[in-house]
Amino acid sequence: MTLYGGIEAGGSKWECAVGTGPDDVRATETIPTTTPAETIGRTVAFFEREGPVDAIGIGSFGPVDRDPSSPTWGHITTTPKPGWAHTDVAPEIRRRLSVPIAFDTDVNASALGEHRWGVARGLDTFCYVTVGTGIGGGAMVGGQLLHGLVHPEFGHMRIPHDHAADPFPGACVYHGDCFEGLASGRAIEARWGRPAVELEGDDEVWELQAGYLALGLVCVICVLSPQRIVIGGGVMKQPGLLSLVQRRVTGLMNGYLDAAPIREGIGEYVTLPGLGTRAGVLGAIALAEIAVSESAGV
Amino acid sequence: MTLYGGIEAGGSKWECAVGTGPDDVRATETIPTTTPAETIGRTVAFFEREGPVDAIGIGSFGPVDRDPSSPTWGHITTTPKPGWAHTDVAPEIRRRLSVPIAFDTDVNASALGEHRWGVARGLDTFCYVTVGTGIGGGAMVGGQLLHGLVHPEFGHMRIPHDHAADPFPGACVYHGDCFEGLASGRAIEARWGRPAVELEGDDEVWELQAGYLALGLVCVICVLSPQRIVIGGGVMKQPGLLSLVQRRVTGLMNGYLDAAPIREGIGEYVTLPGLGTRAGVLGAIALAEIAVSESAGV
Repeated sequence: MTLYGGIEAGGSKWECAVGTGPDDVRATETIPTTTPAETIGRTVAFFEREGPVDAIGIGSFGPVDRDPSSPTWGHITTTPKPGWAHTDVAPEIRRRLSVPIAFDTDVNASALGEHRWGVARGLDTFCYVTVGTGIGGGAMVGGQLLHGLVHPEFGHMRIPHDHAADPFPGACVYHGDCFEGLASGRAIEARWGRPAVELEGDDEVWELQAGYLALGLVCVICVLSPQRIVIGGGVMKQPGLLSLVQRRVTGLMNGYLDAAPIREGIGEYVTLPGLGTRAGVLGAIALAEIAVSESAGV
Repeated sequence: MTLYGGIEAGGSKWECAVGTGPDDVRATETIPTTTPAETIGRTVAFFEREGPVDAIGIGSFGPVDRDPSSPTWGHITTTPKPGWAHTDVAPEIRRRLSVPIAFDTDVNASALGEHRWGVARGLDTFCYVTVGTGIGGGAMVGGQLLHGLVHPEFGHMRIPHDHAADPFPGACVYHGDCFEGLASGRAIEARWGRPAVELEGDDEVWELQAGYLALGLVCVICVLSPQRIVIGGGVMKQPGLLSLVQRRVTGLMNGYLDAAPIREGIGEYVTLPGLGTRAGVLGAIALAEIAVSESAGV
């Protein structure tokens, strides 16, 4: 039987797993994201111990180079994360473990996981948004993961920001008050002086933050026309936040687009991941599965 | 030989053509968009006179219903254009001319035209933006026109708007200062008191308008990751506007994404349509061509 490895290579931790799907996870390990050498070293050690596997899927924080014809395929590129810009990830792991590697963004992996086993089953055009330390977005369009020129980077859209009402300048090192700069966990901590998890129940906080999140999702709706928006990440664990965001999205759309899911079904249209926090690592396993199928000509 | 009809059904005029491509257009007519009955009547008369054709493609202003399983397939839906909300377009033309009809948005038709014969040849993920009376966007992703839940509606994204610098409230009846509400031809005329064409050479106008256009394009880049942005429509005929927009896009991206086309090749990355104002009607012919190929099992 074919066995897969999955790595969700996140900016704060790497989730590793060996298995074939949500009901068959044989080993897992959570590795803190420290230096590239240490993080990749511990990841390789996990698969040496728990393997062998037939292929490994990696869903990585980014931006990444996932162009198979590029000399820097499998690298993290212009990330602002200290020590990680221009890091060789996939080729290094492939060299050390001698297995085929499928490589994509963490959010495309999560989208794939939700499509294979979660709340996006049966859909062909939808997106996965994560609101954690940063904000990322992945998407499937017409049944294929979206890449295009590079890959989606939802977090760096510009959204309206009323400086009079909220003078916070934004937390993005590239763009200041882009979507991520206003609505990510990092932005929330910088704006309010405490991490999101310590701000539970503060209506002022969550009304403002839900407004920014809804503005970003409306842009995604207008560009991608997703059949569903799956929204995960640590910030979305805040009680009540999802329903605030849903209400704001409906309000901002203001009846434009004759689409029942937005008009009447917003509770299912903008929804949490079915796989919870495992969407990324399970999606990475699905990436590996697809790579093996394709190389076998199945 | 198979002969196609194309209709670019726009909000101010309908462009009709009979032919097989840009080098073989046998008849054309431009019909002003008045009432649905009169406009459709004149369109039907054109094809009765210049036909018969084997299939007609229609690229229509929207929003439209292009779900083939819907009872209102081929209708324009919630458009704010007086007299045109919930108008039966494609089924009515099919009934009166008894030919197969392919139906999509005007901007998806234009995207298809540019892919078949214009500046998007060989690309599989790109978008077409029109900046005319309104703003619309169509896209191809992975070689297929993007539809999703409904279809893209780039014009209704929310973009940053500094009310202190520009107190204009926006011109969109649904959303006020959305992308279209700030950057369309209608918005320009409302904001500056004269139509765009009469504002040539006024730097203050075009610096502001280019800024809004660039903000919208940056959102599209972050969501869709297009390999190229084709931008047409009457407003883009303004001399110098394209290069202002290009410069603003590069500035807003600020080096994020390690993508040479944005960093160094913006002049080719954000570009005018290769087919000029014929992109829509030729794309409609390409829609008809695809419909005939598919029904023939080719």
